[in-house]
Amino acid sequence: MSESVATTEYRITSEAKLRSVVSRTLQRVGVAAGDAETVADVLVAADLRGIESHGVARLETYYVSRIRKGTLDPNAVPAVARETETTVLVDAGNGLGHPAGKRTMETVIEKARKHGAAFGAVRNSNHFGIAGYYAMMALPHDMIGIASTNSVRYGAPTFGRDIMLGTNPWAYAIPTADEPAFVLDFATTTVPRGKLEVYKRKEKALMPGWAIDKDGHPTTDADAAMQGALLPLGGFGTDLGGHKGYGLGLLVDIMCGVLSGGAFGNDLPLPGQSKEGAIGHFFGAFRVDGFRDVAAFKADMDKELRAFKDSAKTPGENRIYVAGEIEYEKTLKHRAEGVPVHVKVWTGLEKLTGELGIPFDL
Amino acid sequence: MSESVATTEYRITSEAKLRSVVSRTLQRVGVAAGDAETVADVLVAADLRGIESHGVARLETYYVSRIRKGTLDPNAVPAVARETETTVLVDAGNGLGHPAGKRTMETVIEKARKHGAAFGAVRNSNHFGIAGYYAMMALPHDMIGIASTNSVRYGAPTFGRDIMLGTNPWAYAIPTADEPAFVLDFATTTVPRGKLEVYKRKEKALMPGWAIDKDGHPTTDADAAMQGALLPLGGFGTDLGGHKGYGLGLLVDIMCGVLSGGAFGNDLPLPGQSKEGAIGHFFGAFRVDGFRDVAAFKADMDKELRAFKDSAKTPGENRIYVAGEIEYEKTLKHRAEGVPVHVKVWTGLEKLTGELGIPFDL
Repeated sequence: MSESVATTEYRITSEAKLRSVVSRTLQRVGVAAGDAETVADVLVAADLRGIESHGVARLETYYVSRIRKGTLDPNAVPAVARETETTVLVDAGNGLGHPAGKRTMETVIEKARKHGAAFGAVRNSNHFGIAGYYAMMALPHDMIGIASTNSVRYGAPTFGRDIMLGTNPWAYAIPTADEPAFVLDFATTTVPRGKLEVYKRKEKALMPGWAIDKDGHPTTDADAAMQGALLPLGGFGTDLGGHKGYGLGLLVDIMCGVLSGGAFGNDLPLPGQSKEGAIGHFFGAFRVDGFRDVAAFKADMDKELRAFKDSAKTPGENRIYVAGEIEYEKTLKHRAEGVPVHVKVWTGLEKLTGELGIPFDL
Repeated sequence: MSESVATTEYRITSEAKLRSVVSRTLQRVGVAAGDAETVADVLVAADLRGIESHGVARLETYYVSRIRKGTLDPNAVPAVARETETTVLVDAGNGLGHPAGKRTMETVIEKARKHGAAFGAVRNSNHFGIAGYYAMMALPHDMIGIASTNSVRYGAPTFGRDIMLGTNPWAYAIPTADEPAFVLDFATTTVPRGKLEVYKRKEKALMPGWAIDKDGHPTTDADAAMQGALLPLGGFGTDLGGHKGYGLGLLVDIMCGVLSGGAFGNDLPLPGQSKEGAIGHFFGAFRVDGFRDVAAFKADMDKELRAFKDSAKTPGENRIYVAGEIEYEKTLKHRAEGVPVHVKVWTGLEKLTGELGIPFDL
C-alpha cells in the first residue's frame, strides 16, 4: 500500500515504535516480554513487507481479543512432544503461534546445521502471521527454508461447495548473493478472503475464478461469495488447474494438521468461529552446502533470477519480478520512509492502548 | 483414456508384456538390463495411471532416438558427487533419467531411514518420466516422498513472453491406511504442451489462461499458442494467481537446476532442441514416525481424505476426488482389463521392434 502513503488513509510511523507499542500491549494482557517481542517482530515484518492483512491490523482483532476472552493462553510454553535427529513435534498449548513457530523453526535450523536437513511440526497453536517470516529465518544460515500453516476455513475443494480448506500458505526462502533472496509465500486459494471484502467495499465485481456462492455456483458478486467459499489456485473446476491448487491446499492441511496430530479438515474453525488451539504449522530447512559450495550456489541464484528479470516483457508491462522482490523493496522503502498504518488500524491501536493504560507514542 | 479402451483408437495388452518389450528394446540399443527394466517400470507405471503422455509413447521419440543420435549415453553410471548424512548430489553422466532418479531416491530413503529426513538432487540427466513414481517410492517405507524435475522449456513467467520455464512438476506422496495414498503430481504450468496439440488436432479453441502468442498476448488459438508459450498455473497476469504458479515453476528450476549445479533457466533446451544432460531432478523423504505413530497417522489420513470426498458437491458434480485417486483407480482397472496403448504408439512400437529385430509380442 506504499502508493497510498501520502494520502489521508494512512499514518506513518517507525518500525521500532510500532514494534514497541505491539510488544507493550501484549505484555499488558499477560504475554511474557520475550514472546511479546517475537509477535511484534513478526507482525511488523508483515507491515514492512506490505502485507497489511497479516500485520498489526490483527493485534486486537485476533490476538488480544482471544486473550481477553480466555480462548488463547498468553502464558503457554511450547513443549516438545516428539523428537529425533532431524524431526521435532511441538505442542503449542493453545498459545500464540509466533513464539511457537519461531522456536520450532530455530530447532529445525539447529538440527539441519548438525545433520543437514530437518523438519518440524506444531499442533495446538494459533495464527502465526506470515509464513514467509519463518522460511526466511533459514537464510542467514545458508539454508533453504520452508514454512506453512493451516488456518480458519474459507475455501472449497474442486467440485465441492462445502467450506473445507484454509488459505493454507506455502513459503520457501532461498539464499542469493547480491539479488534479494527468493521468497515465495503464497496462499493456495486464488485470492485471500480480505480481497472479497475490499471488492465489496468498492462495489466492484469479483474476477471469475475467485469464489463460488453458497450453492456452489461460480459468482462474481462479493456478497454471494462471502456467503459461499473461495476457490483454490486455478479456479473453478479443472480447466485452469483448480485441482492443483486444491491439492496444494490439502497438502498443507495434511502437513500441518494430520502430521502434527492436531486439528485438520472439518475440525478447523469456520469464519467467525474461535476454536482453541486448532491451528498447526509445518517447517523445514536444509543446508545448501549439502549439495554445492555456498558461494557458487548463490552466484548461480543471482544468475537465475536475473535471467527471468531480464527476459522480454508482455505488451504494456515493463518489469518481471521474482518471488519476494516486491516485498523486499517495500521493506527498504518503509525502513527509510516509515511504515504506513491504515487510519482504522491506527485509531484501533490508539483506543486499545488507551483502554490498557499504555502510552500511545507512535 | 480408459473410456476409449473399446474403440479402435486403442489396443490392449498386459503390463508385463509392455514392460518386456520396452526393456528388450532399450537393451538392444545398449542399455544395461537392470536400467532398462527400471525405465520400463516407470514408463508402464505412467500408462497404468492413465498418463499416456509420459508412458511408452516416449520410448522412441525421446529415449531411443537420443541414444541412436548419440546425445544420451545408454551406459552412463550415475555417480555421487557430494554426500552428507541427509543429502546426496548425483551426476547422471547424461544417462537415462529413470535409473539415476530411482537410485537417488533409494539413497534418499535409506538416509531418511537412518536419520529421519533426507534430500537428493541429480544433475546432468534426462527426462525421468512421471515425478509421482519417485515420490511414491517412499510409501512402503511409511515415509512422505517428494520429487520434481525441470524440463524442456515451454512456459513464460508472469508479465513475460520469453519461453523460460519447463512444465516443472512437483510430486508429493503420503501414506494412508485403507484409502489410496495421497499422490499429488502436477505440472506448474496451467496445462501441459500436449494439450495444445490435442486441441489443434480437434480444431478447438483453447481456454483463456492456458497460453500466450509469440508477442505475449493471451490467445485461444492453438497454432498461435504453439508459437508462443504456456502460462503458469493461475494463468495470465496476477488476477488469478499466475504469479504463484510462476513462483512454483521457478522453485522447481532452482531445486533441480541451481541446487544440483546443473543446467537452469536459459540453459535448458527449447522445444525441438536436444541438449545433452540438461535436465535435473530433486527428491526428498522423511519418516512419518518422526512426528507420530504410523498407525495413528494413517488412520487420520483416511479420515482427512474421506472428509473431503464426503463433502457437498457443486451442481452437476457427483464426486470429489483427492490427489492420486483417479490414477489409482485407473491402475486397478488397467491391471484387471489390460493397458490401453494408442494405435499410433502401438504401430510405432511394432516398427521400432521390427527395425531392431525384437519379437513384437504384445
